[in-house]
Amino acid sequence: MLIVQKFGGSSVADAEKVTRVAGIIADTYCDNNDVVVVLSAQGDTTDELLEKAAEINPKPSKRELDVLLSTGEQISVALMSMALEKMGLPVVSLTGWQIEMSTNFEYGNARIRSVSTDRIRQELDKRRIVVITGFQGICGTGDITTLGRGGSDTSAVAIAASLHADKCQIFTDVEGVFTADPRKVEGARKLDEITYDEMMELASLGAQVLHNRSVEMAKRYGVNLEVLSSYVRKPGTQVKEVVKNVEQMKISGIAKDTNVARIAVVGIPDQPGYAFKLFRALANAKINVDIILQSIDRDGHNDISFTVAENELEKAFAILRERKDALGYRDIYAEKSVAKISIVGAGMLSSSGIAAIMFEALSDAKINIQMISTSEIKVSVLIDEKDTDRAVQVIHNKFFG
Amino acid sequence: MLIVQKFGGSSVADAEKVTRVAGIIADTYCDNNDVVVVLSAQGDTTDELLEKAAEINPKPSKRELDVLLSTGEQISVALMSMALEKMGLPVVSLTGWQIEMSTNFEYGNARIRSVSTDRIRQELDKRRIVVITGFQGICGTGDITTLGRGGSDTSAVAIAASLHADKCQIFTDVEGVFTADPRKVEGARKLDEITYDEMMELASLGAQVLHNRSVEMAKRYGVNLEVLSSYVRKPGTQVKEVVKNVEQMKISGIAKDTNVARIAVVGIPDQPGYAFKLFRALANAKINVDIILQSIDRDGHNDISFTVAENELEKAFAILRERKDALGYRDIYAEKSVAKISIVGAGMLSSSGIAAIMFEALSDAKINIQMISTSEIKVSVLIDEKDTDRAVQVIHNKFFG
Repeated sequence: MLIVQKFGGSSVADAEKVTRVAGIIADTYCDNNDVVVVLSAQGDTTDELLEKAAEINPKPSKRELDVLLSTGEQISVALMSMALEKMGLPVVSLTGWQIEMSTNFEYGNARIRSVSTDRIRQELDKRRIVVITGFQGICGTGDITTLGRGGSDTSAVAIAASLHADKCQIFTDVEGVFTADPRKVEGARKLDEITYDEMMELASLGAQVLHNRSVEMAKRYGVNLEVLSSYVRKPGTQVKEVVKNVEQMKISGIAKDTNVARIAVVGIPDQPGYAFKLFRALANAKINVDIILQSIDRDGHNDISFTVAENELEKAFAILRERKDALGYRDIYAEKSVAKISIVGAGMLSSSGIAAIMFEALSDAKINIQMISTSEIKVSVLIDEKDTDRAVQVIHNKFFG
Repeated sequence: MLIVQKFGGSSVADAEKVTRVAGIIADTYCDNNDVVVVLSAQGDTTDELLEKAAEINPKPSKRELDVLLSTGEQISVALMSMALEKMGLPVVSLTGWQIEMSTNFEYGNARIRSVSTDRIRQELDKRRIVVITGFQGICGTGDITTLGRGGSDTSAVAIAASLHADKCQIFTDVEGVFTADPRKVEGARKLDEITYDEMMELASLGAQVLHNRSVEMAKRYGVNLEVLSSYVRKPGTQVKEVVKNVEQMKISGIAKDTNVARIAVVGIPDQPGYAFKLFRALANAKINVDIILQSIDRDGHNDISFTVAENELEKAFAILRERKDALGYRDIYAEKSVAKISIVGAGMLSSSGIAAIMFEALSDAKINIQMISTSEIKVSVLIDEKDTDRAVQVIHNKFFG
């Protein structure tokens, strides 16, 4: 088999961890697999480099920031190769430019366009382990770019897709994808399998196991993903197109997101165009609006409530205030102490009443629902932030208890 | 003018120093020059990286070591670019592979083959300051190589040669090339000019201002070098083919080298081939022999004394001991507490009696000369190590006092 293995920064943070991870790679290689490894920068390297930059220039260009930050993964791949060399294994490290990981020009948040597999194939043909820098590429002018958040996961999936790898393993500090956060929710269990769509919903809902860009890409190119632990050697969670839902579980997982704020815009004229103007103003400022609730007409006026990310609240609020006259509303309120709880499951598609079970669990626990949003495989509710953990637990008990 | 400016690791060791050096670059640029900057890794970066490697594998491959170490200069060029950006100047950093600094395959000690000037020219045409990583290149397979000791100087000269730059300025922590070490020798003065050949003799004699490889290359391609201080803004020493020796100085400088040991091989048969065998054995082990003194025949036997670098003494001694029978000598002695004092000057070529002046100075000071070696532009003597500083001072007084 040809296996791509990706390890994050905390998995290669120091000499001991590098050596441990080298052991995992060595075992995979010695099981007669071709192995391509993708690495992030070691633990705090990126922060240290950012600090160095900030001392000199608090607002450096993104181009030079990428030149700086991309050294982090290069250090990781060299050190990992040295660890594998010490085990007597044939290995070669390669950088983003050496594998021609071609991206667009968006420094700091570049999108992958293509990966050349020539050099990787050459090295694999020599039976070498190939250790590649994640998170980085080069754009058309031959300049260094970085891929932004979740970049190394995306690198790994792109490389796996280009090589038509049999498997792309994403090693993390958790054992896989759980029905809920196992550190917080009693009875949370690891899933053996999950669909790409479910994984994406869970990722965007703050499950923080895999970044959405990588799952999206894995889905598009049919890459078999596995999320597993770099500390415990056991199977993780397979992410794939169709899962055999042996357990007949109605939902796959429960996620919470406390980085949420609610804005209420009160007294908007109930005429065509006013709601549009409001959301257009936010969209122009690249502010994502999530759950939207529009109240029933009273005296020719509407109220609109919606949620934004808490760290964008201030910006959103300022934009709406500035345009008070144009938007025609009477008043505006913000509320930060809210949380979004979501249940995700491909099973919802074929099974009715899932949302009702969730609402019942919350009602039994006397937790008030402020807003509701549903999609084909997801139901989200907005509740008071102080009820967050309790809400996740009672919903988990209801579905998995 | 097109000026290449090279700054070493200590000149860019921290944020403050980077900013100071950026000031020098900015001034040069704002004087309407095209500026190409070549940088080494910051202060201790290389040592820190070597330490990281040693923790994981005390004997890593040279290839992976080069992948690791080359990140040091990349960090430097990114930070320097950020400092120049902060001053509002147009700047771009480039790595060894981005300028196609092509080398042979000798990882850790690669030789430069060629530099592509396309990208550099493009950037200069946009009136940008171009900041390039020293010390590193890529070999034919597109792998990263480093150039070994003095590598950044050599990078700077190679880039200056390829661009036909008007000047290549090597910034150091001294103000130029001195007639002797100014920290040790009273009355030592800075030279305004020096020839390539003189510079090379001084460099190999331990003056440690410029590495020989870079001076050799500068001579071959006629690059105008200048050695100057990154702390004091005044003209340094020009290194060129022919100097106007306005001061009519007979010598350019005095150098000392205490990393010297003397080996005496006693009682070698005075027959053809014995001396040859001895030096062949050392050459095969890549041990450089410097001054050689052969005594007059006594009873059909010779004594041969010669010097080697002190850190190679043990190895040389072991080789000669092993081959005692084949080499036919009677006994062998080593002496570590010796030093080599040299005077260097292109003026010697046309001026006789220079050596005599040196010997007179030493004789007046009652310093015994153990061995003598001369070349066209150099006279070296071996003396007791304890007399080193005194010898340099009395010779300096004689020539420059």
